[in-house]
Amino acid sequence: MATTATRDRVWESLRNRGRLLVSCPDRPGIVAAISRFLFERGANIVHSDQHSTDPAGGQFFLRVEFELLDLPVRASTIEAEFAEVADRYLMQWRLALAGKPKRLAVFVSREDHCLLELLWQQRAGDLQAEIALVIGNHADLEPVATQWSVPFHYIPLAAGLKAGSDASQLALVRQHEVDVIVLARYMQVLSADFIEHWRSRIINIHHGFLPAFVGAKPYAQAHERGVKLIGATAHYVTAELDAGPIIEQDVQRVDHRHNVRDLQRIGRQIERTVLARAVAWHVEDRILAHGNKTVVFS
Amino acid sequence: MATTATRDRVWESLRNRGRLLVSCPDRPGIVAAISRFLFERGANIVHSDQHSTDPAGGQFFLRVEFELLDLPVRASTIEAEFAEVADRYLMQWRLALAGKPKRLAVFVSREDHCLLELLWQQRAGDLQAEIALVIGNHADLEPVATQWSVPFHYIPLAAGLKAGSDASQLALVRQHEVDVIVLARYMQVLSADFIEHWRSRIINIHHGFLPAFVGAKPYAQAHERGVKLIGATAHYVTAELDAGPIIEQDVQRVDHRHNVRDLQRIGRQIERTVLARAVAWHVEDRILAHGNKTVVFS
Amino acid sequence: MATTATRDRVWESLRNRGRLLVSCPDRPGIVAAISRFLFERGANIVHSDQHSTDPAGGQFFLRVEFELLDLPVRASTIEAEFAEVADRYLMQWRLALAGKPKRLAVFVSREDHCLLELLWQQRAGDLQAEIALVIGNHADLEPVATQWSVPFHYIPLAAGLKAGSDASQLALVRQHEVDVIVLARYMQVLSADFIEHWRSRIINIHHGFLPAFVGAKPYAQAHERGVKLIGATAHYVTAELDAGPIIEQDVQRVDHRHNVRDLQRIGRQIERTVLARAVAWHVEDRILAHGNKTVVFS
Amino acid sequence: MATTATRDRVWESLRNRGRLLVSCPDRPGIVAAISRFLFERGANIVHSDQHSTDPAGGQFFLRVEFELLDLPVRASTIEAEFAEVADRYLMQWRLALAGKPKRLAVFVSREDHCLLELLWQQRAGDLQAEIALVIGNHADLEPVATQWSVPFHYIPLAAGLKAGSDASQLALVRQHEVDVIVLARYMQVLSADFIEHWRSRIINIHHGFLPAFVGAKPYAQAHERGVKLIGATAHYVTAELDAGPIIEQDVQRVDHRHNVRDLQRIGRQIERTVLARAVAWHVEDRILAHGNKTVVFS
Repeated sequence: MATTATRDRVWESLRNRGRLLVSCPDRPGIVAAISRFLFERGANIVHSDQHSTDPAGGQFFLRVEFELLDLPVRASTIEAEFAEVADRYLMQWRLALAGKPKRLAVFVSREDHCLLELLWQQRAGDLQAEIALVIGNHADLEPVATQWSVPFHYIPLAAGLKAGSDASQLALVRQHEVDVIVLARYMQVLSADFIEHWRSRIINIHHGFLPAFVGAKPYAQAHERGVKLIGATAHYVTAELDAGPIIEQDVQRVDHRHNVRDLQRIGRQIERTVLARAVAWHVEDRILAHGNKTVVFS
Repeated sequence: MATTATRDRVWESLRNRGRLLVSCPDRPGIVAAISRFLFERGANIVHSDQHSTDPAGGQFFLRVEFELLDLPVRASTIEAEFAEVADRYLMQWRLALAGKPKRLAVFVSREDHCLLELLWQQRAGDLQAEIALVIGNHADLEPVATQWSVPFHYIPLAAGLKAGSDASQLALVRQHEVDVIVLARYMQVLSADFIEHWRSRIINIHHGFLPAFVGAKPYAQAHERGVKLIGATAHYVTAELDAGPIIEQDVQRVDHRHNVRDLQRIGRQIERTVLARAVAWHVEDRILAHGNKTVVFS
Repeated sequence: MATTATRDRVWESLRNRGRLLVSCPDRPGIVAAISRFLFERGANIVHSDQHSTDPAGGQFFLRVEFELLDLPVRASTIEAEFAEVADRYLMQWRLALAGKPKRLAVFVSREDHCLLELLWQQRAGDLQAEIALVIGNHADLEPVATQWSVPFHYIPLAAGLKAGSDASQLALVRQHEVDVIVLARYMQVLSADFIEHWRSRIINIHHGFLPAFVGAKPYAQAHERGVKLIGATAHYVTAELDAGPIIEQDVQRVDHRHNVRDLQRIGRQIERTVLARAVAWHVEDRILAHGNKTVVFS
Repeated sequence: MATTATRDRVWESLRNRGRLLVSCPDRPGIVAAISRFLFERGANIVHSDQHSTDPAGGQFFLRVEFELLDLPVRASTIEAEFAEVADRYLMQWRLALAGKPKRLAVFVSREDHCLLELLWQQRAGDLQAEIALVIGNHADLEPVATQWSVPFHYIPLAAGLKAGSDASQLALVRQHEVDVIVLARYMQVLSADFIEHWRSRIINIHHGFLPAFVGAKPYAQAHERGVKLIGATAHYVTAELDAGPIIEQDVQRVDHRHNVRDLQRIGRQIERTVLARAVAWHVEDRILAHGNKTVVFS
């Protein structure tokens, strides 16, 4: 069990670690331009991973992790200077400070397994983030959040009040300076506006192996079909239900002995594992969404 | 590489090994009746595995593997006697002699990986069966079958001649005393009559993770959707395409670096593994199909 | 999140469910004798799974799960009557009531992940047991146990006081009517007497893939050797360290990017999963230990 | 089944594809220097993957895959020019032409599964290499090699003639211009001289999950220990038996029902899969050996 002091030391050790993520139309010279830019500022590249969809005119994706003295104070200057390089190559890009933990809002309904997994991994130091608050459309998990000293906000969904609950949620996540929203078995659809505003920053866990079992009750569907593997899917939320870019999936073997209840039990293990992995990759700036797909750098 | 002599020794060592498979409405006393029946005839039960879908009025499934002196000569008497027990409990059942290898017909088109896997596993003694013949609707794989000394029959599918090619196939599999038909990437639909005649005895490999990607080009579909795992599915063939009882499925991890061609390459590995596993289970009498599902005893 | 009421309903639904486990020298007629015994008393067999190590004179293993009206009040009579059958075949056997949850004592040191996994799975209704108490040789995890309303006992290990701490532990587990002891990353060796007394009822999680990395710091050893998979092993504790019968193992893929700290992080996930699976199988009476191996019925 | 023409088209499509592999002490500016070097010569970087063991003074590893017009004719000039950059940073490095398939010598004894896997994958176009010859210390697999039109050389190991057989092997692999030697279940130890000469270019498949079961009969050892997963390990061969840098490992689940013969059967599947994966990574220039470990770029 990592203490707060231990976690603080980890953040401190990462204070000069930067992560640059770039996506742009491919052409020769991009890596050279970026690596030269970083070298001229004294950065040492620790990891870099680059992918092009097609050597002839595809899309270029890059993640560079580097060490640079006094990065926190120099970051805004570097961003301003990099904008020139970025413009030249039509880049979409961002610079993230590894030492500044991202802040999560976890949206829940009644099931606790995904929430608990995130809380535990965060405390253990395995999830490099802060859990800023939990928002529930039911009050059931308030005791869980309280146990772990995380603020819980109960925003019920009254009939006809959808717009209102969305507004309350938006206000809360703003107030808590949230970077990413995690739908941890949150059984309710968000409004298109909300989703657009948080594009590529809302992660959902679908309790089925997409695209096999879209919609409700995927485990009942899986049981009915007699599949031999069940799975779960973490994806970014888009306006079209269950169709957003897939971040991670995993499966477990099942057989004729398992009833729907067993599949749900086994499914809970997959769901929390897959969701936690997707959230970890997001907060470590490993994911670039492009169209309806993701590039996940290892 | 198992020699023919080695394989013959294996069959010989199994000559007194019987497998009884039973499916019937559940009620108390079935296991007692069967085990008493076997005991009274001097059988020693080596493995038995039983499953009931529901303790209150579900379906009962049983697989018993036993040793019995002189089983081959006594089998028909035992079957006649067991029919009385079976009638009492409304059983569907069969008695299989483990020492009598099942005979396979392998239907192919142009891709060799599934055929080669079966040929190799059979020769290695890992697939307890004989491969009686290969039937191709293209002639491409004739050299492969010939290399392995297995008869190859080329039955092209001329326009309007479907009924005719079905008849040729039926005649061939009868003449070769075939027990089970394996569609090893056979890219053609069989007639409803043919399928009905060979119900629960035609195994197909679908090159996708059913029910996710039914129909053609599942790897292209998977790539388009950006999934993180691709899979294959072995199933019994029914009149409804891609909807028969699933026997086995497996998956492999893929990522953004893989193009459709890579998915096909990785898919070939999964396909041949999954198909070979399903065929092995079938010839070892481990599978009971029930409705649109299978019970696979381990 | 299963409420106490939900869990009580589950136990209630299992009140007439019995599990009979048998191990004896193999010979014909055992299954017939047992199934007849159960049938004559009105039991309906729900699952049964039998294994013989060798058809000619090996060891026979059986697990039968059955429904029997008023089992709780009839169990002692049935046990007395079954003893006669058992004597005839030299059986080691036990009859377990599925509706009577087993009581666990969880021994811990400083790491919380295995304890939390058990607490969560128990509350979720996925682990069919009661967690009677937690015993720590450090006080670190007292708040965790308390959060989950489970008694925590701190029994420090003072130099020269090993015998004393053993006695305190024994007294506590007796007083709490414990059925099985789980060493959930308990970093201390138990005395040979203690182990002998709790033979096949102490489950340990070894943070390495036995028998690859026995002893201390298995993840450091794994990193040093450059392995591509790391794993964990749940086993029954015997007097010889790390050599007891293996119940379950699992692995995760790692690569050159992972340092020892990463391996520990990934390892925590495997450890808690593997341990929880082993404990679940034990409390569902699926395991028969025989020599230095286990038979685990699915 | 890929025809020769198809494979030739694949090689042709890769003719301008280069792969640069670099290992050196880490310091700032290496990526910048290399990417500038490539850019100035008109190369477009398709993939690049870089890893540093430690941002403060560790080892730097890089694999860059690029497209460059007329690479085959320009390669020697580029190598001469890159030597200057390499010297500045104390690099160990190599430039490989992706369009020039590496040539394999496969060493075998009596078991055919690994050899067949390589032959099939090569023909299918899944293994980007040519299999130049097969050398056997037994003649058993000569028909297999012949079936696939690959030269087979039988070099028996007479007592006291070890040095002689080594010399014959060396002469053959030279004559066939072999790039990498694959020990495909070759049950004989090579001489220290031979190994030193082919350092990081001999790949062996160990039929056990190293370092768990070194030495002979790993499946018998695994059965004796009652493990729940068995595995295989592909590694570079070094003078110390079973201790060379691990390239790849995989496992399969086993249980109490499996005897040693079953483990061998399951093991064959793992062995050929793991070996083929390791060989594919080697011929695609994805592996850098460093000390007793490997960096495998994905």
